[in-house]
Amino acid sequence: MSDIYLQQHAPGRLREPGDGTRSLLHLDSSASRPGDSTSRQLTALFAETWRRRHPGAEYRYRDLAAQPVPLISSDFVALGLRSERRGNVPLGAVSALAEGPGEAREWSLTLPLINEVRAAGTVLLGVPMYNFSVPAALKAWIDRITFPGAFTDSVTGESVLGDTEVVAVTARGGCYLPGTPREDFDFQTCYLRAYFTELGVPEDNLHVISAEMTRAGDVPKLARFRVLGRRSLDEARSELLALAAPRPDAEPWPL
Amino acid sequence: MSDIYLQQHAPGRLREPGDGTRSLLHLDSSASRPGDSTSRQLTALFAETWRRRHPGAEYRYRDLAAQPVPLISSDFVALGLRSERRGNVPLGAVSALAEGPGEAREWSLTLPLINEVRAAGTVLLGVPMYNFSVPAALKAWIDRITFPGAFTDSVTGESVLGDTEVVAVTARGGCYLPGTPREDFDFQTCYLRAYFTELGVPEDNLHVISAEMTRAGDVPKLARFRVLGRRSLDEARSELLALAAPRPDAEPWPL
Repeated sequence: MSDIYLQQHAPGRLREPGDGTRSLLHLDSSASRPGDSTSRQLTALFAETWRRRHPGAEYRYRDLAAQPVPLISSDFVALGLRSERRGNVPLGAVSALAEGPGEAREWSLTLPLINEVRAAGTVLLGVPMYNFSVPAALKAWIDRITFPGAFTDSVTGESVLGDTEVVAVTARGGCYLPGTPREDFDFQTCYLRAYFTELGVPEDNLHVISAEMTRAGDVPKLARFRVLGRRSLDEARSELLALAAPRPDAEPWPL
Repeated sequence: MSDIYLQQHAPGRLREPGDGTRSLLHLDSSASRPGDSTSRQLTALFAETWRRRHPGAEYRYRDLAAQPVPLISSDFVALGLRSERRGNVPLGAVSALAEGPGEAREWSLTLPLINEVRAAGTVLLGVPMYNFSVPAALKAWIDRITFPGAFTDSVTGESVLGDTEVVAVTARGGCYLPGTPREDFDFQTCYLRAYFTELGVPEDNLHVISAEMTRAGDVPKLARFRVLGRRSLDEARSELLALAAPRPDAEPWPL
């Protein structure tokens, strides 16, 4: 393992796979209009910076709030169970297991979303906290892409996401950091960590960046936390900029 | 506070409000067909038992998977923020705040769902664990009913759910109980407790009953947990029966 490899894996740095796999999948899930959404503004900052740094790299965008992923149906569950019981079914062989048009339709809604994640070098998620958890819009996407074996190599049984970077940008009206009175109400950042870890994304590749107290300027009882909110937003911006485009003098690879 | 009041609040017992408010709101969120869904079977057991015990009581049913609650939109957020900034807006006055047909439509989708919860003596939820959390179908309902002030008395500022009972029946393919290796992956039961507590449902009124290892009969690597799964299901059934229809000799109120 070279020094460059190690340096690329340092916390707060995105690894840089070969140009062939350099691509960004950008997902937003806030129901707010773009101008009113902290998570959308922050993911846009990351995406624009990343794309300037990687001209020509593939970029895909999905607005999970404006164009919702349909909720999974009983046909999805039936196909998933059949595929799981068969065991080690490659994704390309799932459609042959579908019984009837309902299951075929479910699979046609699902496979492209799974392939997008598998193909992405970096998955960027904009995730406001809604009622202490992720928005239903994001959960609908999670419930659909988590088809049995979707991210497992059917031959080796290993996760295919071992090189994938995940950048989850979370925005919270209050503050839910460890040590605060509300930390036990954070079913958002801890959840995203648990979910993506379980999919096989290595911890070092999982970057959760939070803007806290986004409503401090708006909700009277949070007014005393305005400075904290502004500082948290500034820090989130800095972290995202550093992640999307590390300073040239820190670059282990040629620009 | 009388002895009867205390007895009615004992853990594992539903309080019994006056007949006028005795009603059951039953919500399922599993995507599985009824015959394949543990959570649906368990909520049906509770609902049937409860209804036999309370003939003539109001009963409402919603299948959140088959008839999904639409995801909240930017109009919902805009109306919610406007209402919250105004402060202490009674539910009946929200529609007058709606600007444009989009916001009016959002409110017309939302108010009936809120009123159902406010009117219910007992809210019964069927909640399978999907990807360590609640199904998107349930989260869509949660995100919609949690409109600012929806469950607050606009005069006193108190929750209107102080007498509401919540029975959440969770079903999990594996085991996520405290002390198990997977307890940190439970973003379902803890989440439901946090959410309903925040809404103002007293802890004693919150009954979370889980069936663990529901997939033990199906997933080869869980086969050794089959006995545990069967026992957990039996226990969940017993708990639900006791909750829906306590034994007559334990009754503090006349049948």
